[in-house]
Amino acid sequence: MRKLEGIIGLIPHKSNNPLLTCLLVEVRDGEVRVRGGNGEVEASASLGREDLEVEGEGTLLLPRPLAEYLPRARRVVLEGSGVVLELQGGGVIRGQTVAPEGYPEPLWQGGAEAGVELPEPFVRALGGLARFAARDDFRAIFRGVQLELREKGVRAVASDGYRLGLVEAPREAPEGTPTARAVLPRWSLEGILRLLSGPVRLDLGRGRVRLAGEGLEAALSAMEGEFPDYERVIPKEPTLRVRVAREGALSALDEALDIADPQNRRVDLLYDGQGWALEAEGPYGRGRWPFPARLEEGGLEAGTWAFNGRHLREALAWLEVQEIEGWLSAPGPSPAPTLWRGEWQGLRGLVVLVPLRV
Amino acid sequence: MRKLEGIIGLIPHKSNNPLLTCLLVEVRDGEVRVRGGNGEVEASASLGREDLEVEGEGTLLLPRPLAEYLPRARRVVLEGSGVVLELQGGGVIRGQTVAPEGYPEPLWQGGAEAGVELPEPFVRALGGLARFAARDDFRAIFRGVQLELREKGVRAVASDGYRLGLVEAPREAPEGTPTARAVLPRWSLEGILRLLSGPVRLDLGRGRVRLAGEGLEAALSAMEGEFPDYERVIPKEPTLRVRVAREGALSALDEALDIADPQNRRVDLLYDGQGWALEAEGPYGRGRWPFPARLEEGGLEAGTWAFNGRHLREALAWLEVQEIEGWLSAPGPSPAPTLWRGEWQGLRGLVVLVPLRV
Repeated sequence: MRKLEGIIGLIPHKSNNPLLTCLLVEVRDGEVRVRGGNGEVEASASLGREDLEVEGEGTLLLPRPLAEYLPRARRVVLEGSGVVLELQGGGVIRGQTVAPEGYPEPLWQGGAEAGVELPEPFVRALGGLARFAARDDFRAIFRGVQLELREKGVRAVASDGYRLGLVEAPREAPEGTPTARAVLPRWSLEGILRLLSGPVRLDLGRGRVRLAGEGLEAALSAMEGEFPDYERVIPKEPTLRVRVAREGALSALDEALDIADPQNRRVDLLYDGQGWALEAEGPYGRGRWPFPARLEEGGLEAGTWAFNGRHLREALAWLEVQEIEGWLSAPGPSPAPTLWRGEWQGLRGLVVLVPLRV
Repeated sequence: MRKLEGIIGLIPHKSNNPLLTCLLVEVRDGEVRVRGGNGEVEASASLGREDLEVEGEGTLLLPRPLAEYLPRARRVVLEGSGVVLELQGGGVIRGQTVAPEGYPEPLWQGGAEAGVELPEPFVRALGGLARFAARDDFRAIFRGVQLELREKGVRAVASDGYRLGLVEAPREAPEGTPTARAVLPRWSLEGILRLLSGPVRLDLGRGRVRLAGEGLEAALSAMEGEFPDYERVIPKEPTLRVRVAREGALSALDEALDIADPQNRRVDLLYDGQGWALEAEGPYGRGRWPFPARLEEGGLEAGTWAFNGRHLREALAWLEVQEIEGWLSAPGPSPAPTLWRGEWQGLRGLVVLVPLRV
């Protein structure tokens, strides 16, 4: 009944539309279908008789506090506008249902412009990608994640203006296959991805997106507005190419962040001609950590790049590979964006990170 | 190094006395002693060379952010007012220490009036007992837990005016053994009990209490004021005696609390001449649960007792016995206090709970 709990979890405790604080339950011929959401994102599922035994027929709204008992109910009896929930432990609850008139129609009304099967690793990477979207920003579109169905792949991009994350899965689609894109609100997408497991079917159409996983179907309203042209900020060629051992790099970053200035979380990446190190300085002292990187391409005597250490940490943590490739430009007072990339489980992921001006 | 982390956890991030935001470190002949706290509660420990290798000698204050690296340090070098922390992963941190002049003297200065070894189950029960103390109340003393060293036992009591918890361990002390008592602030006591494991030595003296467990010593300031005479609210004789299966009772209470009125969390305990049940009613419906109790003493045709369901739940959860004995008085509009009791691992515990007036 995890899917039922997941759907109930999407129902708001309070809403301008009080009907949205209920779970929609439709019972026909012993089949039970439930739907819940906040108007911007919703999920629905069919429950078999083995999930829930229901006596009676009809369509009703169950206030969330009553709906929360459903996963523990062994039998549900519909009696006019009343409902009786017989719980597994022997408890019996009698409550009132709400008339379903006025409950919003399903967000997804069909009419897909394009669709694709998302492999499971892509779905997981998509959940992590959402962190690169903005929490709040003057450009509201940055609070979204753009999904793109392209001819040669399916891609997701998120950015907060200081960093950008991108993940792509290749696709063997015949020429002329429909393409489409949509920007999904970060919070809605993260909420839905927590409920879905296994591969997921993605459909895009008319301001709506549908995601369907094992036994659960979700729909989201897409955001309005244009996602900026991000391709131009992605470096095309490395000046310097390094290779970084991810696990050791994350440990060093964790310790450096503990002492770094809490205002800007500045952590410096240094090369002294021999090896690489991190340095951080805060109000209580300064520290230096060996950094497991090696220069693979390009010549460099010495250099320093300053980063928001938390952003660098999140980039390296999201790229799920043992060794991450980094592209750096020659250091200077106004350094060019850096790029961090890796390939795993058939995916290609990258993060663009702008160094701090120092 | 769990004890070191525990002591650091007691150090406030901010304080009117900035010295208290540091860990006191004393190094003599390779022996390291650390102490930290907020002025009302503190803990100290000796660290062996196997815990921490220190080069240099002296007494210094380490700001909490630097102290937090200590559990991961393989070597610490004292250099005048500076300190170098060499971390296990290869990182090196250089920081400044603070001069120790003005750091408070240890809270515990000796002079125990009475002391006792607390068995491990008593220490654990004491941690749970603190929940019966008030969070905030017009009688500040209710925010404390009273510890009593009596001739025949060691006892702890907490109450918020609506309920009272008491735990006692017997003691074979010769006549004339010194007795003493002290009221300890709930938050300080809970903080310290999290750090102590195994049996604990308790000493009481002059407004201070000392608790010493394995490798860790703690001291607390006692609260001023008199704990009220609680003995008179403890029922002495049962009118009705019931026996309750704890686990089933907790499950029923959990489900009843989900639907109960969130304002008063009222849950009714009912006897109908045959069996026992719980009933609860809230804005979304009402429910009834079988309650695993049996009447053992006293005659009763039928009756209802209304409780704050969360208080009843906390009482039954704290009494760590399979079957809990309950004392009820005949039900009525202004019912007498109920008592819930059990004995486990050599302890005697009880909770007094006043039913709601209905």
